[in-house]
Amino acid sequence: MAGNTFGNLFRVTTFGESHGPALGGIVDGCPAGLAICVDTIQQELNRRKPGQSKLTTPRKESDLVEVLSGVTTRDAGLTTTGAPLGFILRNDNAKPSDYSHLENTFRPSHADFTYEAKYGLREVAGGGRASARETASRVVAGSVARQFLATLGVEVGAYVERVQDIGMPLPPSFHSRDEVDAHPVRCPHPDTARRMAERIEEVRHAGDTVGGAVVLVARGVPAGWGEPVFDRLHADLAKAMWSLPATKSLELGSGLSGTLMRGTEHNDAFVHRGDRIGTATNRSGGIQGGISNGEDIVLRVGFKPVATVMSPGQSVTREGKPIEVRGRGRHDACVLPRAVPMAEAMACLVLADHALRQRAARLTFGA
Amino acid sequence: MAGNTFGNLFRVTTFGESHGPALGGIVDGCPAGLAICVDTIQQELNRRKPGQSKLTTPRKESDLVEVLSGVTTRDAGLTTTGAPLGFILRNDNAKPSDYSHLENTFRPSHADFTYEAKYGLREVAGGGRASARETASRVVAGSVARQFLATLGVEVGAYVERVQDIGMPLPPSFHSRDEVDAHPVRCPHPDTARRMAERIEEVRHAGDTVGGAVVLVARGVPAGWGEPVFDRLHADLAKAMWSLPATKSLELGSGLSGTLMRGTEHNDAFVHRGDRIGTATNRSGGIQGGISNGEDIVLRVGFKPVATVMSPGQSVTREGKPIEVRGRGRHDACVLPRAVPMAEAMACLVLADHALRQRAARLTFGA
Amino acid sequence: MAGNTFGNLFRVTTFGESHGPALGGIVDGCPAGLAICVDTIQQELNRRKPGQSKLTTPRKESDLVEVLSGVTTRDAGLTTTGAPLGFILRNDNAKPSDYSHLENTFRPSHADFTYEAKYGLREVAGGGRASARETASRVVAGSVARQFLATLGVEVGAYVERVQDIGMPLPPSFHSRDEVDAHPVRCPHPDTARRMAERIEEVRHAGDTVGGAVVLVARGVPAGWGEPVFDRLHADLAKAMWSLPATKSLELGSGLSGTLMRGTEHNDAFVHRGDRIGTATNRSGGIQGGISNGEDIVLRVGFKPVATVMSPGQSVTREGKPIEVRGRGRHDACVLPRAVPMAEAMACLVLADHALRQRAARLTFGA
Amino acid sequence: MAGNTFGNLFRVTTFGESHGPALGGIVDGCPAGLAICVDTIQQELNRRKPGQSKLTTPRKESDLVEVLSGVTTRDAGLTTTGAPLGFILRNDNAKPSDYSHLENTFRPSHADFTYEAKYGLREVAGGGRASARETASRVVAGSVARQFLATLGVEVGAYVERVQDIGMPLPPSFHSRDEVDAHPVRCPHPDTARRMAERIEEVRHAGDTVGGAVVLVARGVPAGWGEPVFDRLHADLAKAMWSLPATKSLELGSGLSGTLMRGTEHNDAFVHRGDRIGTATNRSGGIQGGISNGEDIVLRVGFKPVATVMSPGQSVTREGKPIEVRGRGRHDACVLPRAVPMAEAMACLVLADHALRQRAARLTFGA
Repeated sequence: MAGNTFGNLFRVTTFGESHGPALGGIVDGCPAGLAICVDTIQQELNRRKPGQSKLTTPRKESDLVEVLSGVTTRDAGLTTTGAPLGFILRNDNAKPSDYSHLENTFRPSHADFTYEAKYGLREVAGGGRASARETASRVVAGSVARQFLATLGVEVGAYVERVQDIGMPLPPSFHSRDEVDAHPVRCPHPDTARRMAERIEEVRHAGDTVGGAVVLVARGVPAGWGEPVFDRLHADLAKAMWSLPATKSLELGSGLSGTLMRGTEHNDAFVHRGDRIGTATNRSGGIQGGISNGEDIVLRVGFKPVATVMSPGQSVTREGKPIEVRGRGRHDACVLPRAVPMAEAMACLVLADHALRQRAARLTFGA
Repeated sequence: MAGNTFGNLFRVTTFGESHGPALGGIVDGCPAGLAICVDTIQQELNRRKPGQSKLTTPRKESDLVEVLSGVTTRDAGLTTTGAPLGFILRNDNAKPSDYSHLENTFRPSHADFTYEAKYGLREVAGGGRASARETASRVVAGSVARQFLATLGVEVGAYVERVQDIGMPLPPSFHSRDEVDAHPVRCPHPDTARRMAERIEEVRHAGDTVGGAVVLVARGVPAGWGEPVFDRLHADLAKAMWSLPATKSLELGSGLSGTLMRGTEHNDAFVHRGDRIGTATNRSGGIQGGISNGEDIVLRVGFKPVATVMSPGQSVTREGKPIEVRGRGRHDACVLPRAVPMAEAMACLVLADHALRQRAARLTFGA
Repeated sequence: MAGNTFGNLFRVTTFGESHGPALGGIVDGCPAGLAICVDTIQQELNRRKPGQSKLTTPRKESDLVEVLSGVTTRDAGLTTTGAPLGFILRNDNAKPSDYSHLENTFRPSHADFTYEAKYGLREVAGGGRASARETASRVVAGSVARQFLATLGVEVGAYVERVQDIGMPLPPSFHSRDEVDAHPVRCPHPDTARRMAERIEEVRHAGDTVGGAVVLVARGVPAGWGEPVFDRLHADLAKAMWSLPATKSLELGSGLSGTLMRGTEHNDAFVHRGDRIGTATNRSGGIQGGISNGEDIVLRVGFKPVATVMSPGQSVTREGKPIEVRGRGRHDACVLPRAVPMAEAMACLVLADHALRQRAARLTFGA
Repeated sequence: MAGNTFGNLFRVTTFGESHGPALGGIVDGCPAGLAICVDTIQQELNRRKPGQSKLTTPRKESDLVEVLSGVTTRDAGLTTTGAPLGFILRNDNAKPSDYSHLENTFRPSHADFTYEAKYGLREVAGGGRASARETASRVVAGSVARQFLATLGVEVGAYVERVQDIGMPLPPSFHSRDEVDAHPVRCPHPDTARRMAERIEEVRHAGDTVGGAVVLVARGVPAGWGEPVFDRLHADLAKAMWSLPATKSLELGSGLSGTLMRGTEHNDAFVHRGDRIGTATNRSGGIQGGISNGEDIVLRVGFKPVATVMSPGQSVTREGKPIEVRGRGRHDACVLPRAVPMAEAMACLVLADHALRQRAARLTFGA
């Protein structure tokens, strides 16, 4: 109820602040009998962690995950037992002193002011719970979800489609992780990636920041996942994407351009495709009436420029007196490359949840 | 869990199909002591109901709401008692025979195929539960929520900003219901409204449909509503908007255009504003870190063109044989005017829920 | 959150007051493809309804259920579609005037005082939402759950084991509905039933009331239902039984007598039983570690004497002035016979929920 | 959904097995601004931990709690920030080898068989998640809840009323912790405590175990907590108590003896009591219609004898072959003294949750 839990049958609850002793969480509802690889979780964390390249914040965090429960040793590997997976990640590079100048004021477009309005007090260091650092816990949980989804033949891949006005000249589609991670900016189109990186370098030197867009594709999702009315599959995906820090827009399938078409242009014709029924086009983005139709699920998420800039911004003190605030500490000039694993993690959590929910939809499951 | 419940502390559960005996729902968690006006609920329903003008479907439904519980008579009016409000709306213009041609096939870009994939069977008439008719129940619940929000000084207003490529020449802002409802297309800019109506008429005559965009503004929301991390106020609003039929895109505050700016341009400076702290600009759309900051909350929702068109579309039978499907029955050529009260209803539900959730955030509530 | 919803995957939400226009509810999460018989639901309601015999309240209610959604016609019967089942029951014998003397005072051991303390106001007539009349909605939902459970081979049966100090001379076991309903007191031991009925008649003539105990047995529950830690199968059954009006005690398996034994006496030895592993005794009551073990689930629920007595009781006015309150209206002298279908309904709801939850417990369901 | 979360607004989720690296949990929804004392949490843990006296298991666990988030330093103490409190307790005395003889069989009246039936596999060591060791996490969360409740004037106290057939000669009432903890058996009646201890020693020497009853009293709960219908305050307390390992019976107020009375004897007369309305007797146990009435809340929980006995018990192998199983490892001969802090913790969690839920019940909170 206080907002730190996500999911229903496959559910994660997280805790931890940017500059406290540790982050962590609990994954509850992961089915028993799943082979779990902790190295794989660690690799996902490494994709998210700061300091991977000169494009991201120089804050160094080892982000080593420690899984404390919910697994047992079997056949030389770990297997889930049905019990909740508790995990922690120690913070080893906290620098609360970077924030002492903010005790009596609020950074523009940050959560400082709203947290204080809500709770009557706030953890000043690093934005406390509002720090994007909490997404590390989501990545751990998302990796467990992804390993479950893999047993069902479902893959989730995201990439940077646009940095500010520099976009890929290709329509959204699934790209392998190798393609995406070939360049640290995580755009699978090499020439665009290079130009994006130049732009990010340029704004960083100017003490400024930029936003852009991430495309996320889930493939292999069978027809039938998602619930009608309120818990439509895309409604839950939307909540997931809008729970990420810095989201400003979301599109499904044809997205904004679809709202400009006529119905006769926009409809996806059904076609016979081998052993299943498919659609000739995919303007629906893989979801119809809130339920997956077996085509690729395609989302585009727009992110704002990071709010922490190195130039002075106008603010007021708690008493309402004008004051200039300037970013200190270690921050990203562009969140997009690190948003890729975050968006993937959230999508995996939604899909894993609906995979399990689908098991309750019929009298005879599997029939 | 099966997706027919929305909200936590202020919660609605709905039931009913397009061509069954009745729709209805239960509003649970409305605080006791609220003066409720059933006429006001009925007026909201009348805004949503079909057949209001030649712009919308000619299906005639009286959509009379009957409130069955949860209120008691007090001071010549009704007051909530804290008990759940049950309500029903009889369907009085069901025509299941309009759908008999669909028993063995699936309308393109409808939920026919996905419902059958999920449940192994489906209610053919009117799309059953997938019909937009279920939103009538949301409007009832949303009106109760709105009456609660009014006691807190919160207003929610939406309007049609764009039909296909015909858009208002003004930035998003709050418009009164009188302005919005002055024209049946529900665009508060008279000249644009007229052109939108012409376009809708034109596509209707062509047996086609169009989409567009709705802007929704909530004003008077105090700073402090919303939860960090997963249940950010805009994440819950996003889920609400994406639970509407036909949503294709969503933007918050500066939206897509914000993703093209630099951080120094995009940040909202804090300013002293009378007795409270405000922001000079509102690119954040009234929400920072998932929590309201006291400024207007501004969303833009894009809707696809209605999938039911009167021209033939390609589909397949259940056995995978190609077949042409053509819309029958009574349908909207443009869902936008009727989407306005639906979007408002969903936003009211989210805000009422977070208004109550905020009461649990501090040791001393009200302090 | 306001307490009118029960269950997770198989979930009911109810509404309605004793003297309002109607009661009703929504069953959400019933799997698609279940053949549903409305006559069977009505028979369950008839078992619960007042006025069945001279042993129960003479209030006459037709209690006719109207199912409004969630089913479609198939093979000459009704089948669930996966959509929520909405239903209502009209109140046709409300007599609010029976309660006008209570506007300014509180009946002893009723909810009048606590409702007013909670909500700041209350519906005086019939106790409003606090009336046991709301259990009619539970019986409807419970009947749907029971029809689902029947497809899994699970049966739930309850009976009156004791009225005040008149108890059956037999240990708890499953009794068929024919045996139980052979006597209107719903005790399957004819001689005891006769003595119980005499006692109830005697106290009724004295304007007084009596309590007693109901035994509930679920048989055919496979091993593996229930969740560890908080949602143990018996914890959810306990919540269900304690949500009934008038519950004062609950026992599982050996119950109170088990707390007097030594471990060596109390443990249930495992034995090979045909094709499954069973236990030689059943002191565990069919549940170990919160999870069903395949043996009969056995509960005993104690109920207090009904609080509405025809002799005067001491109370105070809202201002704290002493006043005598005497029951009016039509009330049961003993709730036990009617508690039988209520307890069964709640147990069915819990079991149906856990039947569905079990589907999410393993990587490969059904394996 | 997988059963490791308890509560709604004040909510705990736990993880951890008996013989894994650590236990822990997350408390979400604790209001911001609460002064928290970690020493107090540790003291509660020390009351629960094994090895406190010769009456309990000799397993030694330091049970040192580490709070990882959710608090900030203020006025030389810790204050909650509204963020979730994550915590862990390392297991430092795990001896998995004590359990190697159980790999292919099931201990009678333990969860070995049912876990395997549910999940298809189980953690053999220490019963894994089924170990009572998980209650340590509940005690941590319960202590946070208790510190919140203290600000509202609510106290919760439990004590051992009966060990097997040795019971206190006094009716249930509140006893201070000093009285209760004066004897390690946690019975506040010294002579009875001495006899209970002798009995426990006697059965331990015989390699056997005993059960008994705990009384729990909550005082200072204001009138108005609890929800009607399903989430009655006592229904949630019942679920809490039945979620403890070994619960066999539960009584509220007059309990079983109340089911033997007539209504005229059982009803609690309302009386004017200083500035509030109270009841002359408390057979209702402080709850009417599911809502607290301002009197002491009184529960009695019966516990079975611990299932792990040192004498051989009959079981079968996974293949159904008969085998003798004998307890190894370090176990309690009587769980009652350690059940006292567990029951208190669960009651505190329920009350804290309903304290927050009550804030949403009225239009104007605090009025």
